[in-house]
Amino acid sequence: MARTYAVAAVVLAVAAAGAILHFTDAEPVATFVVTGAALGGVAWLIGIATESVGARFGPAVAGVLQSTVGNLPELFIVLFALSAGEVVVAQFSILGSLFATALLVLGLAIVAGSSRAPAGRMTFGARLPNDTATLLLLAVFLIAILGLSDQVGDRASQHQTEISVVGAVCLLLVYAAWLVPYLRPGSSERALDGPSHSVIPFPVAVAMLASAGVLTAFLSDWFVDALDPAVEALGISKAFTGLVIVAIAGNAVENVVAISLAWKGKNDLSISVVKNSVSQVACFLYPVLVLASLAFEHRLTFVIDPVYLGALALTAIALWQITGDGEAVLFEGLALLSLYVVLATLVWFE
Amino acid sequence: MARTYAVAAVVLAVAAAGAILHFTDAEPVATFVVTGAALGGVAWLIGIATESVGARFGPAVAGVLQSTVGNLPELFIVLFALSAGEVVVAQFSILGSLFATALLVLGLAIVAGSSRAPAGRMTFGARLPNDTATLLLLAVFLIAILGLSDQVGDRASQHQTEISVVGAVCLLLVYAAWLVPYLRPGSSERALDGPSHSVIPFPVAVAMLASAGVLTAFLSDWFVDALDPAVEALGISKAFTGLVIVAIAGNAVENVVAISLAWKGKNDLSISVVKNSVSQVACFLYPVLVLASLAFEHRLTFVIDPVYLGALALTAIALWQITGDGEAVLFEGLALLSLYVVLATLVWFE
Amino acid sequence: MARTYAVAAVVLAVAAAGAILHFTDAEPVATFVVTGAALGGVAWLIGIATESVGARFGPAVAGVLQSTVGNLPELFIVLFALSAGEVVVAQFSILGSLFATALLVLGLAIVAGSSRAPAGRMTFGARLPNDTATLLLLAVFLIAILGLSDQVGDRASQHQTEISVVGAVCLLLVYAAWLVPYLRPGSSERALDGPSHSVIPFPVAVAMLASAGVLTAFLSDWFVDALDPAVEALGISKAFTGLVIVAIAGNAVENVVAISLAWKGKNDLSISVVKNSVSQVACFLYPVLVLASLAFEHRLTFVIDPVYLGALALTAIALWQITGDGEAVLFEGLALLSLYVVLATLVWFE
Repeated sequence: MARTYAVAAVVLAVAAAGAILHFTDAEPVATFVVTGAALGGVAWLIGIATESVGARFGPAVAGVLQSTVGNLPELFIVLFALSAGEVVVAQFSILGSLFATALLVLGLAIVAGSSRAPAGRMTFGARLPNDTATLLLLAVFLIAILGLSDQVGDRASQHQTEISVVGAVCLLLVYAAWLVPYLRPGSSERALDGPSHSVIPFPVAVAMLASAGVLTAFLSDWFVDALDPAVEALGISKAFTGLVIVAIAGNAVENVVAISLAWKGKNDLSISVVKNSVSQVACFLYPVLVLASLAFEHRLTFVIDPVYLGALALTAIALWQITGDGEAVLFEGLALLSLYVVLATLVWFE
Repeated sequence: MARTYAVAAVVLAVAAAGAILHFTDAEPVATFVVTGAALGGVAWLIGIATESVGARFGPAVAGVLQSTVGNLPELFIVLFALSAGEVVVAQFSILGSLFATALLVLGLAIVAGSSRAPAGRMTFGARLPNDTATLLLLAVFLIAILGLSDQVGDRASQHQTEISVVGAVCLLLVYAAWLVPYLRPGSSERALDGPSHSVIPFPVAVAMLASAGVLTAFLSDWFVDALDPAVEALGISKAFTGLVIVAIAGNAVENVVAISLAWKGKNDLSISVVKNSVSQVACFLYPVLVLASLAFEHRLTFVIDPVYLGALALTAIALWQITGDGEAVLFEGLALLSLYVVLATLVWFE
Repeated sequence: MARTYAVAAVVLAVAAAGAILHFTDAEPVATFVVTGAALGGVAWLIGIATESVGARFGPAVAGVLQSTVGNLPELFIVLFALSAGEVVVAQFSILGSLFATALLVLGLAIVAGSSRAPAGRMTFGARLPNDTATLLLLAVFLIAILGLSDQVGDRASQHQTEISVVGAVCLLLVYAAWLVPYLRPGSSERALDGPSHSVIPFPVAVAMLASAGVLTAFLSDWFVDALDPAVEALGISKAFTGLVIVAIAGNAVENVVAISLAWKGKNDLSISVVKNSVSQVACFLYPVLVLASLAFEHRLTFVIDPVYLGALALTAIALWQITGDGEAVLFEGLALLSLYVVLATLVWFE
């Protein structure tokens, strides 16, 4: 517990440094790196606090809460990017979050889990992976027909906002219809095997969650602010920034939590954190942001480039193929990692 | 049984009204609506008559016969559309029939079935859904390589009719190879749980089927005739008409029968009606019409727009993913419905 | 055994005839046909020799060795095609090898196996088909995002060689991670049911393998040399030559061995030969050739036309769908054959 408070102090110090850099108009690359690191640190604190809250309300709630607050940074980053008119960054952050969680984090979790499992075969409940596949295919369908219509440039391509809004509402309804029975006590097939960190007291956790939320909002603002000049200074493409750097920074919690859980053999919980995060980004965060963007000048839609559309569709299918049978071995984890490496390489040259 | 004859009388009256409207050159919108309603009514009568015949020849025959005569209206609509040179309407009717059955009807059947099933989990035999997935993927493969070749505009794209004919023959052969063992007595894994309507006498059923077939032919002719001016008057796009309105009208039987069966807990029979209808349209009706169109001036091919190609491929995969495990829950039914709503929204703007 | 030596003598005679035709600058069509036939014969000898070696080192090694040497002709053909600057032929040979093995050979094996199996249902271990699906999806992902980026013509499309090299290294790593535990004794779930030909003595087999390897290299050179003028004389498109003729000639071993094994009811071994060949071409041969092509003037990349990309993606999915459950029936074999026929028809018109 003392360690948790020490970490919290360090994170606060880094966040303070970020604030100073932001308000003194310092070198944007420095601001970008420091606020990015602070975001990762806050995400880590959120992870600890969530688990403490989860210990009180049961396992399924813990998994969903974990990924919900774990997705807070993405939410703020995209909102601030949208209000700054950076639609490309906004969209790539969402896609990057999906790819990073579904390919990088899940791949690492499988590598960690399978190398510790008996006979190298990691096992987990097959229900959640299959549900996630359904939800992801639903999102891919919507994105695919919009993207293809955009490519062809047919009449419907002039109504992308309207179609995206209808699709967003559909996604939210289906997600709700999935979430409600999933959260019902006793319906979850997996069992929470106890908290993996030293639990902090419940009131402290609630206070920590609240302040972390506020802090995330500020840090995201400064992060997005420094993004544009920093990326230009570093000569990195915007696509790479959004799809890789922001995505990894914004998913720090899921990354660390899922991999360390798999390493400890808590396979079901590890898979739950990853899968819940993936379906939440695709079927909750993305549609919510599409609807929220109606309030901004620049609209966020489900229209994405064919390359990312193809990558997303094949990610959904590969995810289902690899985890749908409730088993995973080393080479399958490496296959997911390879997909991420190849995608990141391509984006590097964009 | 008295109710059946009453319904038959009403349907005949509506059909007669359609005939009068057609021959008096009445307002096309009125003709369109009335003949569409009459087609739905005839489809309903065909459903009842089929079940009666099926009660005599066993369950597998009943399922296939059900979807065969249930697909009669589409057959006539497409034939008349082709002879009138309306290739777009013809093709969209076939696609619409696939989407309506696979997404709308199956979605509603799962919603109905799962909301009545214990623990909200509808179960059924997994064999037929997987066979349907194979057949559908076969059709999608053919459609995909033709569509992609057409998009690229390569040399093969000038021989779409020849390739379509070869593909059509392949589809029919595979469908026959699937159908023959499926119909063999005792090979079917599902059991027919008795007729769901009051059974009418066998000779009456045969007479009804014959007259309904003739009536369908006439009504389809008048329906297609009124289609063009009616759609123009209403300001609805041709794509929406074909993919949504004609598709729902032409699949009335499957709609009503499958959903009511699922509601009564006869899950296997419900899934059988839907799945048989889907594979029959993809691997029997579509290829037969492609071959039949060789006799017309305008040829029907398997080349479709990329948007519908993507939608079809993802529909095939989603169908397999959701029903391939022999189980379905509420959110999965809603997911299928959402796919249909999103597709219909896009088509609305075409 | 006497039969084996007789076959070897005939093959050598045909190869000698090919040599004479090549060095006398004879009619290219004749050289093309004779060297092609000799390649098929050598492949057949390699098959026999491999089995003899395999009998000494166990089942898993036999399966992998079988497909490794069975893929030697493709390796040489592509290398010589690359050095002659025939990048299209090189790429189409690889793709053709994939399609021929995955669709034609597997289709025929399932037709043969299911028609002899009790109740027409051929059964086999589900592990290998699922592993192959994972490996194939990995290759398809890489090929898809490169192909889509090429179509869009974005900035990354100017770095196709670099991205292909990264992808090739990833594919090889994953393939190695899969192969090592697969080859470990006792890890294989299938059992080798004894050799299917009369076994030749081990030293003879090793000598035969060595000389067959050398012979294959020469024959491939002459074959590729005669390819261009022969195809022109025959009026066959290069795409058809690569995807169908070269593919079938180069996969003669897998063809004959897999189908005869299935016919004898040795389903697991039959499926193993086909599946190992498919994943080896996709995740070993193709990446090795991409890396090897760095030494040539013309580079081989993973960028392929959309038509073949679509066909490859759907082949991977259909393969998984049909064999992933460890069962196959007649119509599924016919479905795979149909996919091949449709693809070959399309390529015929290119």
